[in-house]
Amino acid sequence: MAIETVLETREDTELPHRFARSAATTAGVSMRTADLPAWFAERRAAHRFRVRPIPFSELDGWAFDPATGNLAHRTGRYFSIEGLQVVPDDDPSRTWQQPIIVQPEIGILGILAKEFDGVLHFLMQAKMEPGNTNLLQLSPTVQATHSNYTRIHGGSRVKYLDYFIRPGRHRVLADALQSEHGSWFFQKSNRNMIVETFDEVPQDDDFRWLTLGQIGELLRLDNVVNMDARTVLSTAPTTYAEAGALHSDTDLLSWLTTERSRRRLRPRLLPLTRLAEWERDDMSLAHVHRRHFRVVAVAVEAGNREVSAWRQPLLEPVGPGTHAFLVRSFGGVPHVLVAARAEGGLADVVELGPTVQCHPREHTDPLSGERSPFLDTVLNADPRRIRYAATHCEEGGRFLRAESRYLLVDADEEQAPERPPPGYHWLTPGQLASLARHSRYVNVQARTLLAVLNTRAVRL
Amino acid sequence: MAIETVLETREDTELPHRFARSAATTAGVSMRTADLPAWFAERRAAHRFRVRPIPFSELDGWAFDPATGNLAHRTGRYFSIEGLQVVPDDDPSRTWQQPIIVQPEIGILGILAKEFDGVLHFLMQAKMEPGNTNLLQLSPTVQATHSNYTRIHGGSRVKYLDYFIRPGRHRVLADALQSEHGSWFFQKSNRNMIVETFDEVPQDDDFRWLTLGQIGELLRLDNVVNMDARTVLSTAPTTYAEAGALHSDTDLLSWLTTERSRRRLRPRLLPLTRLAEWERDDMSLAHVHRRHFRVVAVAVEAGNREVSAWRQPLLEPVGPGTHAFLVRSFGGVPHVLVAARAEGGLADVVELGPTVQCHPREHTDPLSGERSPFLDTVLNADPRRIRYAATHCEEGGRFLRAESRYLLVDADEEQAPERPPPGYHWLTPGQLASLARHSRYVNVQARTLLAVLNTRAVRL
Repeated sequence: MAIETVLETREDTELPHRFARSAATTAGVSMRTADLPAWFAERRAAHRFRVRPIPFSELDGWAFDPATGNLAHRTGRYFSIEGLQVVPDDDPSRTWQQPIIVQPEIGILGILAKEFDGVLHFLMQAKMEPGNTNLLQLSPTVQATHSNYTRIHGGSRVKYLDYFIRPGRHRVLADALQSEHGSWFFQKSNRNMIVETFDEVPQDDDFRWLTLGQIGELLRLDNVVNMDARTVLSTAPTTYAEAGALHSDTDLLSWLTTERSRRRLRPRLLPLTRLAEWERDDMSLAHVHRRHFRVVAVAVEAGNREVSAWRQPLLEPVGPGTHAFLVRSFGGVPHVLVAARAEGGLADVVELGPTVQCHPREHTDPLSGERSPFLDTVLNADPRRIRYAATHCEEGGRFLRAESRYLLVDADEEQAPERPPPGYHWLTPGQLASLARHSRYVNVQARTLLAVLNTRAVRL
Repeated sequence: MAIETVLETREDTELPHRFARSAATTAGVSMRTADLPAWFAERRAAHRFRVRPIPFSELDGWAFDPATGNLAHRTGRYFSIEGLQVVPDDDPSRTWQQPIIVQPEIGILGILAKEFDGVLHFLMQAKMEPGNTNLLQLSPTVQATHSNYTRIHGGSRVKYLDYFIRPGRHRVLADALQSEHGSWFFQKSNRNMIVETFDEVPQDDDFRWLTLGQIGELLRLDNVVNMDARTVLSTAPTTYAEAGALHSDTDLLSWLTTERSRRRLRPRLLPLTRLAEWERDDMSLAHVHRRHFRVVAVAVEAGNREVSAWRQPLLEPVGPGTHAFLVRSFGGVPHVLVAARAEGGLADVVELGPTVQCHPREHTDPLSGERSPFLDTVLNADPRRIRYAATHCEEGGRFLRAESRYLLVDADEEQAPERPPPGYHWLTPGQLASLARHSRYVNVQARTLLAVLNTRAVRL
């Protein structure tokens, strides 16, 4: 009959070891980690970047719709700023309105991997984004909106894109849709991919092959590794040597299902003009009490971008965020305290977030109206308890100076009890990592902290 | 220091064996399978059920909104019939409009499990639903809308509900949100639960403890096991002894991510009055060419329901559906040919469906405009190739006489090639079952076929 088919094993059990080996390697083939500042300086010199605030009236191609007040590009592409109303099912008196970024298309965030000297390396890019602190940050190989790769910019082709849209003879190591910021984006997700190639790959000047261990070293620095790189690394097929967990995977999924069933929000897009507490002048769209964030416009000039200059709106938060996991060891196995976090812009409403996720200047969660019971433990932590702390930017293509302080903080029974309050659950890093292989479990802030663990920037 | 914490293993590896043992057992403790007709007859006699069509004008409590034309209950609860417009991103000329059921709340479909004589049994209910063929079908222990269990019906308490909303000292074996029919419901999902108890449980007259093997026997009959029971059983923690698979789990997830990225639909609710091709008289809301389905109203009288009589709208499809997996063995391991199926009402747009899923009277898929390339293979299958065929009803609380023919059909290379056309992928039953533990991977039609496999109604 037919030729015998060769079956695959469902899981490649060797792959996590290859990632572990790369995480344990801090000497890469194409650059020493310590040479990154020099390389960045060189790239900065090669491309002149300049970003300056402009009034909305100078945003060519973009306009506020006379009827709805929505801010959109004349082509209907890219993204728009619209209004969102969120009605909590159990308490409509907490109904909430805000502007939100609407961008239904799915972009690709892809990291190309290749083995050198028996160690996986990842092709990272020195990429400018207008909202990033220092502008230039370490980015995935490819960071392409759908508009980018169908070339409606009319710009040059995105480098290395074919590895991700025609994986053909390359090997996909990770590939899932992941949500982005649920309080700034309406139901936005991007495709997070890691693809291994066996080809010879020409290394462009803006790109370097780094080991996971090198990226881990860089994750300990402020504002070097961009959000897109962090979220892709959170989806890496990493496993953790853990003897067990406080809760089985079934209990964990059941807890999340409970949270998703009980915390129902009805989000609905509204015309921006219908938002009660937001006001607009020619320089910004802002909350009347200057809370949350404002929308501004910038002009960008750059040499190595798909197009050499453009103007666009950006969302600028009022202050830095604080996103932290409290950490404890149970039965010798490290656990992080995860919050079931409801956000109006998340398609599934609830995803797993850090223990604390807030802008401390605002103190309270807009949805729950409550101050996190763990915020003081994080803000007042004894430095000896801080296992990790670094400042990172959120997506610099949409957010202006959206810095967040990311922390991993050791806690004790008094600060973070083994039986936490409703809405919180202890997970091992291994449990969190296996959920991040699927869509819509782990939110973007928690994924940054997971990337810190996956790259072994910190070992708990 | 602290008392030593006892950790759990992440997976209970014994559990699948307990399900397998129950599937292999066709002699249960509370009823012989052959006695089901007598028990059903007895329950029918104990409760008089009657369902009759009524004009919309006699639907007390329900009305068409004068402005929108939407059909809703005066309390705003239960569900409503609204309009839906679906715009495919890649081809707006295929924009599609239809009525759709909107019911944002999450209900509970729960089966209580308990071990008797070392074998897991499941507490199944003889339950009447107005749209079911024969009215009475075998149902989960609990089938409760949020309205049910918060008792806005003002009816009696749902029996056994506490096992599911206060699982406390019971043990959750499966618990995930699962989508319902994406062409009839707008982003509807229900919580599918299996909970094991160690308590003595009083067995009400409308309930019987059955093994998985008994339920498998009953799944071979037409119109006995209702949709809610089938979907819960599809989420059972069943494993399959498989030496491998044609594609690794990573490749499978990557394929699905590709399909989800490329097949973008923009669904938007519209007022029912804005639908171009639908017309309403006092007896029905129907397509001008009598395609797809119609919405009708019924009066229900029953004795064992939460309330003794009610009136409600139901959606009545124009003809029976055909939902089939083509089946092949590769390298000695059975595989089913899964379709990445886009439906306007699915929150994630694309889920995994059967090879063929359609109403053959309509021939073409409304979204793709195409006839399934596998439909003829299913409809004209040599009877010796049909491994499973039975007729089952879709949810009888929302759909009237929505019968579907479910099939598993052996195929060969010519009928179903090892490299199928785009949009199709070969999965093992074990791969499908592990995805069904998570939300939104396996659609409701594929879940019926998975339940057939999980209960070993058929062994491939």
